[in-house]
Amino acid sequence: MEATLVVQKYGGTSVADVAKIKNVAKRVLEAKKKIDHVVVVVSALGDTTDQLAGLACQITKSPPEREMDMLLSTGEQVSMALLAMALKEMGQEAVSMTGQQVEILTDTGHTRAKIRHVGARRVIQELRKGKVVVVAGFQGVSSEGEITTLGRGGSDTTAVALAAALHADYCEICTDVEGVFTADPRIAPDAHKIDRISFEEMLEMAATGAKVLQSRSVEYARNYNVPLYVRSSFNEAPGTWVKSEGEIMERPIISAVTHDFSEAKVTVIGVPDKPGAAADLFGSLADANVNIDMIIQNVSDHARTDISFTVSKEDLQKVKEVSEKLVGSIGADGISYDDKIARITLVGAGMRTHPGIAAGMFKTLADNKINIEMISTSPIKISCVVGMEDGETAVRELHKYFNL
Amino acid sequence: MEATLVVQKYGGTSVADVAKIKNVAKRVLEAKKKIDHVVVVVSALGDTTDQLAGLACQITKSPPEREMDMLLSTGEQVSMALLAMALKEMGQEAVSMTGQQVEILTDTGHTRAKIRHVGARRVIQELRKGKVVVVAGFQGVSSEGEITTLGRGGSDTTAVALAAALHADYCEICTDVEGVFTADPRIAPDAHKIDRISFEEMLEMAATGAKVLQSRSVEYARNYNVPLYVRSSFNEAPGTWVKSEGEIMERPIISAVTHDFSEAKVTVIGVPDKPGAAADLFGSLADANVNIDMIIQNVSDHARTDISFTVSKEDLQKVKEVSEKLVGSIGADGISYDDKIARITLVGAGMRTHPGIAAGMFKTLADNKINIEMISTSPIKISCVVGMEDGETAVRELHKYFNL
Repeated sequence: MEATLVVQKYGGTSVADVAKIKNVAKRVLEAKKKIDHVVVVVSALGDTTDQLAGLACQITKSPPEREMDMLLSTGEQVSMALLAMALKEMGQEAVSMTGQQVEILTDTGHTRAKIRHVGARRVIQELRKGKVVVVAGFQGVSSEGEITTLGRGGSDTTAVALAAALHADYCEICTDVEGVFTADPRIAPDAHKIDRISFEEMLEMAATGAKVLQSRSVEYARNYNVPLYVRSSFNEAPGTWVKSEGEIMERPIISAVTHDFSEAKVTVIGVPDKPGAAADLFGSLADANVNIDMIIQNVSDHARTDISFTVSKEDLQKVKEVSEKLVGSIGADGISYDDKIARITLVGAGMRTHPGIAAGMFKTLADNKINIEMISTSPIKISCVVGMEDGETAVRELHKYFNL
Repeated sequence: MEATLVVQKYGGTSVADVAKIKNVAKRVLEAKKKIDHVVVVVSALGDTTDQLAGLACQITKSPPEREMDMLLSTGEQVSMALLAMALKEMGQEAVSMTGQQVEILTDTGHTRAKIRHVGARRVIQELRKGKVVVVAGFQGVSSEGEITTLGRGGSDTTAVALAAALHADYCEICTDVEGVFTADPRIAPDAHKIDRISFEEMLEMAATGAKVLQSRSVEYARNYNVPLYVRSSFNEAPGTWVKSEGEIMERPIISAVTHDFSEAKVTVIGVPDKPGAAADLFGSLADANVNIDMIIQNVSDHARTDISFTVSKEDLQKVKEVSEKLVGSIGADGISYDDKIARITLVGAGMRTHPGIAAGMFKTLADNKINIEMISTSPIKISCVVGMEDGETAVRELHKYFNL
């Protein structure tokens, strides 16, 4: 794709050590030969962020979030400085910038701040001088002058936000895989790389277990219509374009099968079928900062119903504390938990106009004697919760059945 | 000493790991019980700064200084966040601040920036709320909004500058030794801790090899009359006060013997005895950013003279390159180098009024068959350059002779 300004983002595994940083510098140089202006967003070296968080945990079980941001934001500052040095060493003028210097202005939500505005005045000045600008991912500055971080996958969000602010032609997400695949190749060996996919499909994939991109950055890219190009940091193989649906001409009915083994199922049994019960339950969980995923409530012919939902296993302890208190107050009969589940999802924009996809999915699972515990749909996806032991088979068989 | 506001500084060895950071937090808490307002300045954990510099050196032999500052300033940011967490965990409200947030405004001399102004408005606000303020040492921000660092020992300078700006009662330098000693105890086993010493003497000691404080921070303390209290981070033993001379009542003639084995001697032989020769030589060395220490030129009865000077061994290669070019142009006969020297110095404010100290020093060296290669004096010190192999004996014998 012809371009005059591109934002490239390199994740932690792409800058894990000095040799890899030099490799990234080489790739940036290659890009700079073809593209007038290149901005590079970097994550922290390898597992630096986890190491820093580990230090904090040795000091306190509940680190103050403001100090956590002070601590974690150093990781990206190290990698951006080293990459700028590597570029200069190769003869390319470069300058590194912190979130503050780039004016990545966020709210005050430490450890999961949201970007409010990207100024980037100085980025533009430096680009005009012919420099490559290397930006620390994951970090911003709040209206109070505090260093904030953007939460998991925050560097992707930095890159997309910067691409939007700079009206970049596209944002290149350079990572440790070659693109977006029709399924996880470790589970479905005949999975293959997708050439193009829509923002909406990518969002569903990210939300249902695809790790390659974080939902937030895809949402940001969709909202500002910034094309994403996901590719490997380590080879030259073509990657995957993520674009608005209108720009994608030929499109399969099903784009991918995703899986998520990280959730648990919670069922509140015998909830009185009256207004307010669900509101009480999910209101309390929201107050406890628990992200709920699928929620299923069946119409019941009695005065009572069961409500099931899925949550991240990490949050299960919190959910137990909150829900068990509520069972009494909302007058439910009890509560049960299952953390041995797998959520398998078919994603495809073509589903809208092709009835029968759901039926095909259920038949495939039934043919393989896989019991479906929960079902949830959207116009472009169908998710089934099955037993964890059936998860990989489900992915493989669905991938085969739909000829991905 | 009664106090309402104290700045404490903890060096890298005092915050080398999580256990040591917790120890520092305990000491800060103890101080906070007795003192209304406590500000803490921290260095990077252990040898973090060297490790980061090592990464840069793997990338380029001459890292751009601006990027070096970006890189190195992360070290202090990590320790300040961890210490603030440790204080909160112990129930003490605390907030960490970067050089920028503290408004440590510097010039643009990256890697060796000079402090121009300390704002500290937010420090005062936070102190008023009863918080301990933890400040990243070694770093500042330039008028261009760039992160700068203050060079070797910069955290001491941060602490003293902050103490001056806040009108602190004193600045406590907490380190891995118990104070300032009459000589290095590893060389002179009967060396003992000095209770009080003047800024001027401390300056001479720092300039002639005492490692405990950096010259710059002592100079800053003298200029703003900030008393320094040097003590151990690891025990409760009383330390050394460094104050203005007027405040020190009883004072020995000689305060300490210092040594410096890190220098080399350069002699330019047969320099024509005419105006401008020395100016050419030292002008060129200054242009090459070489710090010259002692300079000795003897009056000669011929038309030619020898000029000797000492430089840090680290700079010797640069000196060779610069000087050898100059030998021809200034018409000197040649140049010689000696990197096996030791500089031994007697420091004492009482010298001013006690003649005969120099004679005693020369006699002691002569009695021990130690040849003196160079001599340099100031009102409160006498330095002799001797052969490196005689250095330790010289320290020991002088310490004994002057009854330190």
